[in-house]
Amino acid sequence: MKQSMTLIPTLREVPADADVKSHKLLLRAGFIRQNASGIYSYLPLAKRVLTKIESIVREEMDKAGGVELLMPALQQAELWQESGRWQSYGPELMRLHDRHHREFALGPTHEEVITSLVRDEVKSYKRLPLTLYQIQTKFRDEKRPRFGLLRGREFIMKDAYSFHSSKESLDEVYDRIFKAYSTIFSRCGLNYRAVIADSGAMGGKDTHEFMVLSDIGEDTIAYSDTSSYAANIEMAPVTATYVKSGEAQQKIEKVKTENKKTIAEVSEYLNVNENQCIKSLLFKVDGRQVLVLVRGDHEANDIKLKNLFEASTVELAEAGETKEILGCEVGSVGPVGVSNVEIIADHAIEAIVNGVCGANEEDYHFINVNPGTDFEVTRYADIRFIQEGDPSPDGQGNILFAKGIEVGHVFKLGTRYSEAMEAFYLDEGGKSKPMIMGCYGIGVSRTLSAIAEQFNDDRGIIWPSAVAPYHVHLIAVNMKDEAQASLSEELYESIGQQFEILFDDRQERPGVKFADSDLIGIPVRVTVGKKAMDGIVEVKNRKTGEVIEVQTEKLLDTIQSLLENN
Amino acid sequence: MKQSMTLIPTLREVPADADVKSHKLLLRAGFIRQNASGIYSYLPLAKRVLTKIESIVREEMDKAGGVELLMPALQQAELWQESGRWQSYGPELMRLHDRHHREFALGPTHEEVITSLVRDEVKSYKRLPLTLYQIQTKFRDEKRPRFGLLRGREFIMKDAYSFHSSKESLDEVYDRIFKAYSTIFSRCGLNYRAVIADSGAMGGKDTHEFMVLSDIGEDTIAYSDTSSYAANIEMAPVTATYVKSGEAQQKIEKVKTENKKTIAEVSEYLNVNENQCIKSLLFKVDGRQVLVLVRGDHEANDIKLKNLFEASTVELAEAGETKEILGCEVGSVGPVGVSNVEIIADHAIEAIVNGVCGANEEDYHFINVNPGTDFEVTRYADIRFIQEGDPSPDGQGNILFAKGIEVGHVFKLGTRYSEAMEAFYLDEGGKSKPMIMGCYGIGVSRTLSAIAEQFNDDRGIIWPSAVAPYHVHLIAVNMKDEAQASLSEELYESIGQQFEILFDDRQERPGVKFADSDLIGIPVRVTVGKKAMDGIVEVKNRKTGEVIEVQTEKLLDTIQSLLENN
Repeated sequence: MKQSMTLIPTLREVPADADVKSHKLLLRAGFIRQNASGIYSYLPLAKRVLTKIESIVREEMDKAGGVELLMPALQQAELWQESGRWQSYGPELMRLHDRHHREFALGPTHEEVITSLVRDEVKSYKRLPLTLYQIQTKFRDEKRPRFGLLRGREFIMKDAYSFHSSKESLDEVYDRIFKAYSTIFSRCGLNYRAVIADSGAMGGKDTHEFMVLSDIGEDTIAYSDTSSYAANIEMAPVTATYVKSGEAQQKIEKVKTENKKTIAEVSEYLNVNENQCIKSLLFKVDGRQVLVLVRGDHEANDIKLKNLFEASTVELAEAGETKEILGCEVGSVGPVGVSNVEIIADHAIEAIVNGVCGANEEDYHFINVNPGTDFEVTRYADIRFIQEGDPSPDGQGNILFAKGIEVGHVFKLGTRYSEAMEAFYLDEGGKSKPMIMGCYGIGVSRTLSAIAEQFNDDRGIIWPSAVAPYHVHLIAVNMKDEAQASLSEELYESIGQQFEILFDDRQERPGVKFADSDLIGIPVRVTVGKKAMDGIVEVKNRKTGEVIEVQTEKLLDTIQSLLENN
Repeated sequence: MKQSMTLIPTLREVPADADVKSHKLLLRAGFIRQNASGIYSYLPLAKRVLTKIESIVREEMDKAGGVELLMPALQQAELWQESGRWQSYGPELMRLHDRHHREFALGPTHEEVITSLVRDEVKSYKRLPLTLYQIQTKFRDEKRPRFGLLRGREFIMKDAYSFHSSKESLDEVYDRIFKAYSTIFSRCGLNYRAVIADSGAMGGKDTHEFMVLSDIGEDTIAYSDTSSYAANIEMAPVTATYVKSGEAQQKIEKVKTENKKTIAEVSEYLNVNENQCIKSLLFKVDGRQVLVLVRGDHEANDIKLKNLFEASTVELAEAGETKEILGCEVGSVGPVGVSNVEIIADHAIEAIVNGVCGANEEDYHFINVNPGTDFEVTRYADIRFIQEGDPSPDGQGNILFAKGIEVGHVFKLGTRYSEAMEAFYLDEGGKSKPMIMGCYGIGVSRTLSAIAEQFNDDRGIIWPSAVAPYHVHLIAVNMKDEAQASLSEELYESIGQQFEILFDDRQERPGVKFADSDLIGIPVRVTVGKKAMDGIVEVKNRKTGEVIEVQTEKLLDTIQSLLENN
């Protein structure tokens, strides 16, 4: 492609309204333009990258046994009413009505449509399992669209849905798609982790998020410094073991701690470590009060509490409720003498010797508190957030934290939709059963942004070869120079036989061309300059910045080897 | 692909609500399912055909110098207000508002978005011409969606837009895309015509519609029985020449024609041919009355009148107005003695000798009327519709009529949008000028339907090889037979190396498999039956119905040659 024939509107200035690196770079390098808040045009370079990501996704989904189809963006309200999401989805669901006043949603996802399709067409266990996917534009009316394509309102997704007659079949397809996703993100060149996630209110079981590591991520990942283990921090089990100090138990004693309320204030005032303090919090678990104890240097994890009690809601009790039940303010709560509520403690509490806790009395704490002696715990469990330095739950290495951008999600839906929408099949015995479902998403346009976010330097984007908009950027330093112009045209032809090539044939200053080239970030740059008449060109590796002179007859091999290593 | 792993829900029954062949066949063969009126899911087979059509479109658009991008479906109301179409587009434009009450349209077309994009990014003649295209889902809220994918509310289009600094440049790109379209529809195997169309109110000049010939088409095409000439019937000029008969002029005479009002009634009553009658109609051209004369066997063409007068509106005068101006009812109008309005006559009138016309008096006509003698014509012009049998306007052959389905449209927009939306560039002299534009559409999902409409028999669809969902349909007559099952699996592998293959591995009766195969319409069917153990299979040509036995070692060659001829 000659640059004079396409549209690559690079910008010198950093756009004022762009908030993160990828957003700034994609605007500056002429990949995208905003049409409205959270709504973008993919200009020719971005469209090429999207096409490459989509091809990789298709290849791996097909290998994993998926079959592509295409469902409509306009979805009838009736389907969403059947699943109950017409009400529950909230204002992120874009709604409209047609000229006959029938209501529609613009699909943010297609569980309802696919479930209704498969319910109508598949009646027997013989036609299961079935894995269907599509690559499609989705709509979600984000409250605060931001980060460019990372959180837009119109975006491209690959969404897949699988239907099964047994959990084993779901497990098998889930694993196959999990592997396909790993391959897809590896092929895109991304540094990612498959992260154990919370299946939340969806009623599902296993779920993993594929996270691209990045400081701008909104989720925190706990990952092993040694193995591939990774989980959302709420989900990571704590496997640390705690050993009591050899110190002799002393007698409990009430001390005045005037105006000292937080763990930090109390531990400083009493000159003890935070890990000697017992943090006591009154929670409401499905409406019932529970006193929760974690060590002063730990944080209580409400997701773990929720799972422990198999509860629907877990929340901190309000101040008034704490006063009513325990007779004191929130900062003075402790377990000693408490008998009217259940006491749940983290495993770390069991190892505390001569600890400190609130006395359920304003301005007083107990010191020399010993669990089992001074108070009884109903149940010890893992109820705290994992921390950096904790052992990795898989037994390999220690935990580190990172931020991540979610680019993929695999999820065992179970029968959430098939039951609500009556997607039943007849099993071998002729019995009617709800289909078991899985769903699997990849943010295609988000993946494009995540790649730009992860691969760049102060001059621009650095595309991995597999998803680069072109392989080679050919630059003629001076198009008015006869030798340069003719060698460039010649190379444009010959390189173009083998590689995807963008040829900067514009009448621009060399400085402008080089700056644009670095900004756009095509892996290999070939510059035709003064040595054109000697058949010598300059080859630059965008990633390393390394520049070498190459005889034109060796050019194709040089390009090939640079691409293989990028 | 094994049929047990994909979703091809064939139907035995003809769906009650399907109105045309392609709609019935695409439903019955399991290609599509309706989600709501005019809104469909493309099931796996249809998705494959769409992908092939899209690839052909991309290849030819790229060759023609087009550059692909992707614009959003959600379009801000403000852009449509700038072009004036927010008001004028009417209820076919689907409108919605976001959570912040900002108004959007769901794009039925992208003139506004692309014009705003190019206006913002292209400022100089140096960056022109520019041809941009996209393949995208569009939305149009048809009043009466019908014919399946042919007139849907959510559909796939390829839309392209070109920007120019001169009319010559537009002409060149228009011609290039015209040729690309011809190649695209030829490669899709379609029997089509490029038809001269009316540029209508768009202010453009040249425009062609690509029409697939089909009885269900809504437009009538006048085409040459000899050359490639074709035009919408309103647009085809009449080049017929008319020669006066040798008959001597006689004296005009008023005769009583009680209750005879139509040409048919009068000609029968007076025992003259319809082509001896002068049909006289009072029109209003931009509000001004004009008496229009055409021969009794011809029809007046309001589009030609409009173009002749360069008028905005042309309509028949109402009865009251006719009475007021000419003093009689509509059925008695004639040109004799008329001096208060202009008289425009078709060329055929000039050759009439001793004709018949209304006498502007109830129940009376004139006979022996001679133009030039009994009345004067202000102007003779081509103002009638062309008819079957007329000479083709290009001088080659005669005109026939056919119905057509519009699958493509190329259009010289001129400056309609660039002026309204201020898309200006600086020319070589630094002067600001509106860009000259062209636009070019292909109905991708409609093309799929048009192919099914054109290629079928009473057993099902007959896909041309280039767009068939698979090349080969492999059928094992009895999957429980060891020899058949193992040869089938072997052939599935070996054929699959070279061709796209669908393998019916279902446990179904052979009759069901054969009927499904004919219905789906893959070009080559390979049946593994009783002669499996001898290495002999049956090969069926779907188009001709011809069946031959083939040794497996010759199978790939046989398939290849069948595909080349389909």
